[in-house]
Amino acid sequence: MRKIETIHWVGEVDGQLRLLDQTLLPTVLEEREYADGDVEGVWEAIHSLRVRGAPAIGIAAAYGVCVGLQTVLEADEETFFIRLNEVLAYLSSSRPTAVNLFWALDRMKASAVEIRKQMRFSQSFDAREIAFRLLEEARQIHEDDRRICHAIGTFGAELLPDGAGVLTHCNAGGLATSEYGTALAVFAKAWENGKKIHVYADETRPLLQGARLTTWEMRQRGIPVTLICDSMAAQVMREGKIQAVVVGADRITANGDTANKIGTYSVACLAHLHQIPFYVAAPKSTFDLTLPTGDLIPIEQRHPREITHGFGSQSAPDGIDVYNPAFDVTPARYIRGIITEKGVISPVTEENIRQLFLD
Amino acid sequence: MRKIETIHWVGEVDGQLRLLDQTLLPTVLEEREYADGDVEGVWEAIHSLRVRGAPAIGIAAAYGVCVGLQTVLEADEETFFIRLNEVLAYLSSSRPTAVNLFWALDRMKASAVEIRKQMRFSQSFDAREIAFRLLEEARQIHEDDRRICHAIGTFGAELLPDGAGVLTHCNAGGLATSEYGTALAVFAKAWENGKKIHVYADETRPLLQGARLTTWEMRQRGIPVTLICDSMAAQVMREGKIQAVVVGADRITANGDTANKIGTYSVACLAHLHQIPFYVAAPKSTFDLTLPTGDLIPIEQRHPREITHGFGSQSAPDGIDVYNPAFDVTPARYIRGIITEKGVISPVTEENIRQLFLD
Repeated sequence: MRKIETIHWVGEVDGQLRLLDQTLLPTVLEEREYADGDVEGVWEAIHSLRVRGAPAIGIAAAYGVCVGLQTVLEADEETFFIRLNEVLAYLSSSRPTAVNLFWALDRMKASAVEIRKQMRFSQSFDAREIAFRLLEEARQIHEDDRRICHAIGTFGAELLPDGAGVLTHCNAGGLATSEYGTALAVFAKAWENGKKIHVYADETRPLLQGARLTTWEMRQRGIPVTLICDSMAAQVMREGKIQAVVVGADRITANGDTANKIGTYSVACLAHLHQIPFYVAAPKSTFDLTLPTGDLIPIEQRHPREITHGFGSQSAPDGIDVYNPAFDVTPARYIRGIITEKGVISPVTEENIRQLFLD
Repeated sequence: MRKIETIHWVGEVDGQLRLLDQTLLPTVLEEREYADGDVEGVWEAIHSLRVRGAPAIGIAAAYGVCVGLQTVLEADEETFFIRLNEVLAYLSSSRPTAVNLFWALDRMKASAVEIRKQMRFSQSFDAREIAFRLLEEARQIHEDDRRICHAIGTFGAELLPDGAGVLTHCNAGGLATSEYGTALAVFAKAWENGKKIHVYADETRPLLQGARLTTWEMRQRGIPVTLICDSMAAQVMREGKIQAVVVGADRITANGDTANKIGTYSVACLAHLHQIPFYVAAPKSTFDLTLPTGDLIPIEQRHPREITHGFGSQSAPDGIDVYNPAFDVTPARYIRGIITEKGVISPVTEENIRQLFLD
């Protein structure tokens, strides 16, 4: 079986971005290719969740910049930077909540500015050279994410008791990152370390990332996994089957409030009531220290048809009113710890979070 | 538009039971007919949720007895009662959790015994006469349910503030009863009384009774309704949109613990944490005073495909492990009140429940 990658780049600056189309999983394994300046295709892939998960969105957007610049590889300086700014602005409009998207685009922009600054000392402007070095930067973001995920897994695995039942919501796995995941990296490392965990995966309505992706990833790693509906999480907690909850994050504010897939707040409430520790696993790039609290995080509202026409057939009357927020915010007080590549933040306080960024 | 009825009987003892096939709603309105002794068909209709909801299951089972007896309308006494007992035992195996099923079958059996006792004074055994009077009894169960639902609605409507946002889970409406519902009767009466409520309907995975049935019923009554995924209930509570939760019940034990559709316990936990009153609306026939606590209620486990192939297409990997309990139990301490046809039990204590049965 060929190796399956969430995201990869083939070739050099004239090359192509390939994304595994996650909307088709687990029944169809198919890649999509983006090249020749097709930034609209990359935007659509992010918007329609062909690529999803905060870290993966960041990586895809970084490569998306490289795709966008393929139309200006021979351009003059002004044309090149106009295009770059257009591409950055356009890609940043693909989804509003995951901060890793903006983080990655900011990093690409800062990199372009820095490269240009260095270039001033030479005589001529070389668009292809900047594009080449921006592709290097995107590859670095991609590679950094691999190391970060392994570090998160290592720190998080320590928190899980041997034999633990562990619950997760949505998919914060290899498909949501470069390859290893955040929350699911914690499970993978615990398993590699010989801890006999059992994963319970919320199916995660409306788009069923838990049913489609988390179960699939856990099985690929040979980790025992049981699928439940979101509404059953309380019941499995009550039955004593769950000793820890670990989820990913799309944005974490300065006080530790955490935006993640809709339903995460519900799980956090239930864990709190059942006295089960609730952990968030996320890289530093998921923190947004410009926002003091989670009330300020923009929450994406998505199309009613995701709920009313879930998978092929209609499940609600025509034209019924639907509320479909893509995310919710879990207050810091319900989070036992945030597992980062630098260690575990616990208790979750603004002081402890800011300390992470000083180190 | 012809009147749509959940359950109705056409003709006399040789007649037929007609059930609206709720598995096809809301996109297809289709009735199924059961006659000529086809008790297997009635069993299948209950088992596969063509008719569902605790009170409706009871009514359908009562008529199902009448269908079953159509093979012995000319039989002798022994043959008739052997068939009656077979039919009662068979129908009672259709679903394990809703106590109204057993209550209705017990009522039919007691009625048969009583009728036979009266008949002893006459000379000859008349199977057709007993069957006729059992059909009368089934019709009485049906008619009683109508009055009961209206009484529940009237008592419950008092509890809702004007302008309230109200959340319900699954479908405890006209489709789950004779015509008016239990939880949804509360909403209907409040609306009729001029209270401007807004209903939030959990879609209720895996079988989507909230999405398919509750939204449809509320719209038929002109009551504003918004569909949400089960995982969004916590979020709408947090946003201050919900002032009360009202749900139905499949079995209530002597201490007030309540079995209802899976996910109800989750909603009760969330209501408790958000300090929102949580009510159960159910007739006296839903109480099972033989069980001291909810831990003793048998919980039906259903087929994994309800979760993995829920929307017509496959949403999880082949052969994945699934946990699919059809019900959960909400402890009495999370229930602000139980709305019955005799009034509201609050606080929910064994003493107050037993008082209801003394009156």
